[in-house]
Order: sequence, then structure tokens, then C-alpha cells
Amino acid sequence: MFIAKVVGNVVATRKNDTLVGYKLMIIQPINANGEEYKNESVAADYVGAGIGELVLVGAGSSVRVENQRKDSVIDLAIIGIIDELIV
Amino acid sequence: MFIAKVVGNVVATRKNDTLVGYKLMIIQPINANGEEYKNESVAADYVGAGIGELVLVGAGSSVRVENQRKDSVIDLAIIGIIDELIV
Amino acid sequence: MFIAKVVGNVVATRKNDTLVGYKLMIIQPINANGEEYKNESVAADYVGAGIGELVLVGAGSSVRVENQRKDSVIDLAIIGIIDELIV
Amino acid sequence: MFIAKVVGNVVATRKNDTLVGYKLMIIQPINANGEEYKNESVAADYVGAGIGELVLVGAGSSVRVENQRKDSVIDLAIIGIIDELIV
Amino acid sequence: MFIAKVVGNVVATRKNDTLVGYKLMIIQPINANGEEYKNESVAADYVGAGIGELVLVGAGSSVRVENQRKDSVIDLAIIGIIDELIV
Repeated sequence: MFIAKVVGNVVATRKNDTLVGYKLMIIQPINANGEEYKNESVAADYVGAGIGELVLVGAGSSVRVENQRKDSVIDLAIIGIIDELIV
Repeated sequence: MFIAKVVGNVVATRKNDTLVGYKLMIIQPINANGEEYKNESVAADYVGAGIGELVLVGAGSSVRVENQRKDSVIDLAIIGIIDELIV
Repeated sequence: MFIAKVVGNVVATRKNDTLVGYKLMIIQPINANGEEYKNESVAADYVGAGIGELVLVGAGSSVRVENQRKDSVIDLAIIGIIDELIV
Repeated sequence: MFIAKVVGNVVATRKNDTLVGYKLMIIQPINANGEEYKNESVAADYVGAGIGELVLVGAGSSVRVENQRKDSVIDLAIIGIIDELIV
Repeated sequence: MFIAKVVGNVVATRKNDTLVGYKLMIIQPINANGEEYKNESVAADYVGAGIGELVLVGAGSSVRVENQRKDSVIDLAIIGIIDELIV
């Protein structure tokens, strides 16, 4: 998993059916000091995250293990909202 | 998932059978400001994207979860056409 | 797998149910000479690692193969505590 | 998938049984302008590619979906021979 | 797959049960000219490789396809010992 900041969202009306119903958020990876690295990605929101929030992001087949998501084309998802980073 | 621009397509007559029927598009990853990063990749088109369009791209086993694609060697696919990036 | 140092942990009360019960540790990848590279990631702790310890980290679907973890959204995990690097 | 050029091959007599019978080709990733990026990798050849040819390469579990390959340790494969890149 | 050199090994007594019995080797990725790139990783040894040997390394779920390894947390493995690189 990695730490990111929610910086926006994507509007895409013509998309794969299995994405319907998910908010597609633009996330900016950040390190434990809050510094940005790499470019933005797009993650499906599993926990109701808002713009500006610090989130925990999961990738790959792991974000499709739950029954209701086994058949979705999601490969990146917001799986937690971070209260605190203790370093 | 990530954001990309469709910049061309690949012609490959001798290819794995499971790729037959798919348009193989050359995509250029871009960030939320429209700037290019990384090199181009090749994605199977699931939604009828055209050259120049801004698209949402999925990767890995997630792009093979739908029944009609479970046995295809596709590892990257265009899964949405982006109307708008709200940042 | 890769080598990392445990540098902190993440507090996230609103998170995917399948993460409940796991310590979410912030890990800093290091090479065999102990030098840092890449940015921190977040790994579920499978072996009781402490802050400052040198650990072995596994990624992807491999960290969900054990029965009790098949349905968890974990994609990165601490799977060993390193006693020694012999180079 | 990505675009690459076949630049050589690997000889490895002591190898995992499931690799027996496959030509293991050294491939150099290139972008749509023919420029090299990243380092070489090794891909199993699924389509009879020759040295110097421009090829389409697939990665991860996608290159093991076909029945005859489900139990092979292959994680990278040449899945097409490129006739033309239209950009 | 990629080419690497075995440069050492990891001693980890407290580790996930499914790693028991495997030699955990430190590997340095190299390109076809023998030049080092990226940092070291740790791979389970499937073929009896020794320190200094040139090896073929597989990654991801592909290194868990064989029955005896389906339930192991291994995500990187030495799957061949290279006799020769023909470029």
C-alpha cells in the first residue's frame, strides 16, 4: 500500500460497466514527510474520501478480493483514510 | 488506473490468438496537468477510444476479469474515455 | 521480495474492514548496503516487527495466499525480520 | 503491453522445468519513436520472433492464461510481431 | 523475467512459515552488457544458484504456479542459471 493525497476526480461517462457507481479520484502519491513523488493516478474510492484528505491506497488484484468487486476492472483503490502518520 | 492520451495504434498481423479483434492503441501516460511522463505503452481498447482522446487505463489482471476476457493475454486496457479532470 | 527498514506506522480508523487487526507499518526500502532508495510504502505486519528493525517485504497477490488472508485488500506485507545480510 | 526490439537470447540449461521448450529472448523496450528506454528483460517467445524484430510484449499473469501455459513460471512473453506503429 | 547476479543471502529466523526451506538470495539486476541497474532484491532460490552466478529471475504470481508453491508468500524467485547471453 502507499500514502497519497486526494487532489481531484475524474468524470468519464463512457466507461467500462464495472466502474459504474464508483467515485474515481485523482490521487497524488506522497511520502511520510508529505512530499510529492511520482505522478497522479486514479483510484476507485472504497471509503468515502474527500478532496485534500490523506489516504491509504491499495493496488493490483488485492483491491478486487471482496465479493462485490471480484468482477470489476479496478486496479487501484482508496482503502483507508489516514488519521496520523507516526514516524 | 492512470490517465493517458491515445497517440496511435499498432498493426500486428502475427499475434497471439486471444488478441484478435481488439484495437491495440498506443497510449502516452499524462498527469492531471496534461504533462507527459514515462514512455508509451500499448493498450487494448475496450470502449471505442479515438486518436487524441484522453482515456482511463487499467492494468494487470484487473483488465481480464470479465468473462469474455478471462483467457486473453491483455495486461493493459483503455477502460474509460475521460470527459473532465477536476483538480 | 525486498529489504526495508520499519520507520513508523499509520493510524487509520476509517478503513476497509479486511485491514482491521493488522498493524500498518511505514517501511523505507533499503539496499544491501543499508542505503535508502525509493519512497516509503505501507505494509501489513505479519511477523511482529518493531520500529527500526530490518525486514523482508513481500508484494502483490503473494501476500494473500494464506487462508486467513485470501480476502484481505493487503498488497504489501512484512514477511520476515532480517537477522543478517551476507554480501 | 509494451513495444520492444528483440536483441538476443539467453542460454540456460539449468532452469525451472516449466521453461523447457521456450526460446528465452532478450528484449529492449523502445518507445513509439524507436528510442530505447529502461534495461533489457527476458521474454518467452510465443510467436516465433527473430533477432531485430519489433515485438509486442505482455507481462504478469496475463501471459499464463492459456491452458498450455497456466502452470509455467513465465512472467513476460512476446505476444505479437509488430508490422507497423501508426503515430 | 530479468537477468541478475547473485551477490549474497539473507538470514531471517523469524519469518512467514511458507518461506521455511528456501534459500533467500540477494540479487543485483544487471543488463545484457553486465551493467548493474536498480537496487538489490531478495529472491527465493528454485534452482540451486551460488554466489556470483548469473541467473534468470521471475516475479509475481508466476513464481507460485507450481503445486508445491501455490501457498507460499514468495513474489520473486531464481528460476534459471544463465550459461550464456547471446546479444
